[in-house]
Amino acid sequence: MRKSIATVCLSGTLTEKLTAATRAGFDGVEIFENDLLASPLTPEEIAARTADLGLTIDLYQPMRDIEAVSADDFARNLRRARHKFDLMTRLGVDTVLVCSNVSPQTVDDDALAARQLSQLADLAQEFGIRVAYEALAWGRHVNTYVHAWRIVETAGHPALGTCLDSFHILSRGSDPKGIEDIPGEKIFFLQLADAPLLAMDVLQWSRHYRCFPGQGGFDVAGLVRHVLATGYQGPLSLEVFNDVFRQADAGRTAVDGLRSLLALEESAGVSALPAPAAPSGVAFAELAAGDPQPVGELLAALGFTRTARHRGKPVDLWEQGEARVLVNAGAATRRADTRLAAIGLESPDPQASARRAEALLAPTLPRRRAEQDVPLESVVAPDGTEVLFCATRRPQFPTWTDDFEHRAASRSTGVTGIDHLALTQPWHHFDEAVLFHRAVLGLSPHDTVELADPYGLFRSRALSAPPDGPRLVLNLAPSPTDEAGTRAQHVAFAVDDIVAAVGRFRAAGANLLRVPANYYDDLRARYAFPEGEWETYRELGILYDRDEHGGEFRHCYTETVGHVFFEFVQRSGGYRGYGAANAPIRLAAQRR
Amino acid sequence: MRKSIATVCLSGTLTEKLTAATRAGFDGVEIFENDLLASPLTPEEIAARTADLGLTIDLYQPMRDIEAVSADDFARNLRRARHKFDLMTRLGVDTVLVCSNVSPQTVDDDALAARQLSQLADLAQEFGIRVAYEALAWGRHVNTYVHAWRIVETAGHPALGTCLDSFHILSRGSDPKGIEDIPGEKIFFLQLADAPLLAMDVLQWSRHYRCFPGQGGFDVAGLVRHVLATGYQGPLSLEVFNDVFRQADAGRTAVDGLRSLLALEESAGVSALPAPAAPSGVAFAELAAGDPQPVGELLAALGFTRTARHRGKPVDLWEQGEARVLVNAGAATRRADTRLAAIGLESPDPQASARRAEALLAPTLPRRRAEQDVPLESVVAPDGTEVLFCATRRPQFPTWTDDFEHRAASRSTGVTGIDHLALTQPWHHFDEAVLFHRAVLGLSPHDTVELADPYGLFRSRALSAPPDGPRLVLNLAPSPTDEAGTRAQHVAFAVDDIVAAVGRFRAAGANLLRVPANYYDDLRARYAFPEGEWETYRELGILYDRDEHGGEFRHCYTETVGHVFFEFVQRSGGYRGYGAANAPIRLAAQRR
Repeated sequence: MRKSIATVCLSGTLTEKLTAATRAGFDGVEIFENDLLASPLTPEEIAARTADLGLTIDLYQPMRDIEAVSADDFARNLRRARHKFDLMTRLGVDTVLVCSNVSPQTVDDDALAARQLSQLADLAQEFGIRVAYEALAWGRHVNTYVHAWRIVETAGHPALGTCLDSFHILSRGSDPKGIEDIPGEKIFFLQLADAPLLAMDVLQWSRHYRCFPGQGGFDVAGLVRHVLATGYQGPLSLEVFNDVFRQADAGRTAVDGLRSLLALEESAGVSALPAPAAPSGVAFAELAAGDPQPVGELLAALGFTRTARHRGKPVDLWEQGEARVLVNAGAATRRADTRLAAIGLESPDPQASARRAEALLAPTLPRRRAEQDVPLESVVAPDGTEVLFCATRRPQFPTWTDDFEHRAASRSTGVTGIDHLALTQPWHHFDEAVLFHRAVLGLSPHDTVELADPYGLFRSRALSAPPDGPRLVLNLAPSPTDEAGTRAQHVAFAVDDIVAAVGRFRAAGANLLRVPANYYDDLRARYAFPEGEWETYRELGILYDRDEHGGEFRHCYTETVGHVFFEFVQRSGGYRGYGAANAPIRLAAQRR
Repeated sequence: MRKSIATVCLSGTLTEKLTAATRAGFDGVEIFENDLLASPLTPEEIAARTADLGLTIDLYQPMRDIEAVSADDFARNLRRARHKFDLMTRLGVDTVLVCSNVSPQTVDDDALAARQLSQLADLAQEFGIRVAYEALAWGRHVNTYVHAWRIVETAGHPALGTCLDSFHILSRGSDPKGIEDIPGEKIFFLQLADAPLLAMDVLQWSRHYRCFPGQGGFDVAGLVRHVLATGYQGPLSLEVFNDVFRQADAGRTAVDGLRSLLALEESAGVSALPAPAAPSGVAFAELAAGDPQPVGELLAALGFTRTARHRGKPVDLWEQGEARVLVNAGAATRRADTRLAAIGLESPDPQASARRAEALLAPTLPRRRAEQDVPLESVVAPDGTEVLFCATRRPQFPTWTDDFEHRAASRSTGVTGIDHLALTQPWHHFDEAVLFHRAVLGLSPHDTVELADPYGLFRSRALSAPPDGPRLVLNLAPSPTDEAGTRAQHVAFAVDDIVAAVGRFRAAGANLLRVPANYYDDLRARYAFPEGEWETYRELGILYDRDEHGGEFRHCYTETVGHVFFEFVQRSGGYRGYGAANAPIRLAAQRR
């Protein structure tokens, strides 16, 4: 289907917005009136620029407070409309959005609304223009799509149809099934936005929290299916604005938006993207380290063995159980401090994963860094982390391990694999990152949680591929001034017996994060432990959490090396979380 | 009255929080449990540190989900409470906050709640501890203060009282008058917070938007009067947290909080601050300019005359009508770019204004910069702007003009005075700035408006001293990364006839901001103008706004010099606003 984006979704001047839309690959735009008013370009110049960029102008928006008013007010409104229709002719756009009236002057009279909208449509028809009437969720009398459609149906004018906006419909909890009662040719336009599920004033919600489909909590795909069932032939158009987008880079936002429409088409069953293939596990975590020694010493103390070295690069493979950590001291390491640079995910079919990622506009990397390397499909996540699609030691696929020369056998001191990876996201790209991991990598997002850190509140959202696939935790720094990378990322290793494992780590000289005694006093007040258990946790610095079903989580942290630290987690009883209740304690300890 | 602050109000470690509280001048603190849990100090060490700092610990908080539960659950809760009472004994705090139960396990049974709270109070009494029971606004069954008090009254236990929190009471729209029905000695604690008036889920509202009394929209002083009428003898204690405070400097937040309590005491009629004296006008705007020539040339083209020079410093006085601009090229100018450095306000009694400012913790500046200078009372606003309390040419007071040597007589080309000053505020200190201007300077805040800029959304709030006193507009940059100062500040001059004035400015070579033709097309669509008027505005670059009462606002802008530009405004018909509808046009034009 044709894909459009409202200029209000993107930051910058109108020219910057148009350029971003075409570069991302959109077919058309909605021109938001204020963007035109603030532009030094004439309407004719805007029309020419848009055409040069290969974009159509699909909608001019919005026209406000037109209908269901006194005769005098309506005469003034028609005068205003005539000016706008003239402008639209100069722009070459044939559809105008009319929002339901919000002014205190409007009356609750559907017959009057229908009559005046019909008169407006008469005038529009003279200009070859169609009027798309939309119910704002906060319209004074008309605030549901069913009501707006009833008025349009009453008017029965060929140049008058309705515009549907997923936010206005789903934010009010209206049942979108009723859309199927509208003839497709009377749906003149479809605007799409998602939003997190919040209980708040709908106008504020709309103004500050809209997001692209797939980033919030609405079933936008379900709504689109109902619209398509009517025979609607118009574009899918994004109308999203929030406090973050207004500040973000327009080019990136446009790509994020188009990706959301591509994924939405797939969910709505109207396109054939390469099929999703959820990863089945973590092949490795790759740390870039200007100086590989400190992190190597820590890994050794944690029982990891340096089992192999890359044939062509200064990259070491450290292994224990199914946990693999690459330590890359090569030239590609731009920053000296140790950081998490790449993640290998086990893909059922690496090439298919890469094709899907490419179709979803993920930036791809060369398959080979050097001629002799095993080919490896990889893309870059929004936070800059490389994601590699791996098939570790599966004979039917090339395996990355063939690039490594064996040096030693691994042994295990308790670590069985990688439980999860936690990545701090740049402030402006949190929702983008969630959509990327969901649509491109095939992970399922969990609920967002908010955690208090001594110097700020941050959001955290986990994604996973149930039942046994990889788990990623995306953390959002408290403010744009906290750049990603200034905060630590971490790799969490799974252990079967954390008490035994920690005992060994400590004996081997690993430094674990110190947990305040007050935490343990509180822990004992909250839970009754079997004899000696609490004392062991306190002595070893192990944190504890229990969910409402009795599932248990025991975990502890190493000290931080560069921007990276390690966690050890022991899950039992079906515990699915990440110990969020203990996060403030960990964060405060790390701040010291 | 004694003044306290909850440690959760302040950022940082517990030690940093305590230090900030004592430095600001608080008498006591509420210890928020998570701050204690995350601290490496033992309870005894915290008690000692607090005492050393001259603070009392007035409350330990919160204890959650205690009452109206099954016998088994209550037995566990009592066990938990015993641990906490033991901890409180080590801390030396005698009052604990118990919040009404929010868990799905609690039952709607007031008799059970009263019985279990009574048992809790029995246990507390053994430790010499009092239990203050508070209704959370989102408590499962108990969510109004009247309900919480009814349960406390039913229990009839000497160690059980109620805690009142202004947010929980006012956010639900409860009538605070009923507080007077509670005996003062049964109000064990009073927590104070304000909040902007929002329509949203009360828990999210509480978590993200609380602010200090005087910064939001609640009548906190009215509530305090009702509490005092009961004979309440405890402290006034702040419990405020929001997304900004968590990141802000603790020392500054503590001062801001104490200032809010001092102003609140005055509003509630329980203290005698030096009386407020609203300023009657703007004496001058002072620009610091490393190179005074560009701004001097602009002022000259705008019809200003350089009438005088400071006797001891390179400061020129430019005058036109009652508008005075100082251009300071002196050593105090830390940055080369021209910026608004100081504002002179006409005070009915400058010394009284300064005494009030000092009582409200405003940082004061020396009265004389040099020995021969006329003494001038001044303070520093939260954004760093100096505010000087002036008595221009009033014989009974020293006048700042005596420091200046007359050089020329001013003439007028239309400017009659300063209409308003617009100041960009640092992101973390917007609410602080509003309270400062309100409490310290005696200005009245108007509603907050939100404006769209091409690269972000920003908040704007005007303050004024009606009917004819000064007007200030505080603008909040879209994000913490937009430091105040990177955005322009401006001085708006009043004119009687903007068309005539702009004609003269242009003839004298002043560059005015160019307004897009599309703006004028839209303006003509919105309003019908008398013959020729619209054409004149378009030709001269004059913006136009009309309010709902027919009041009119005509304005235009100069180009920006350094970080400063000038506006010209002509008000008629009682227009009180600032042309907010035109702000996006202006901002986009300035971005080009």
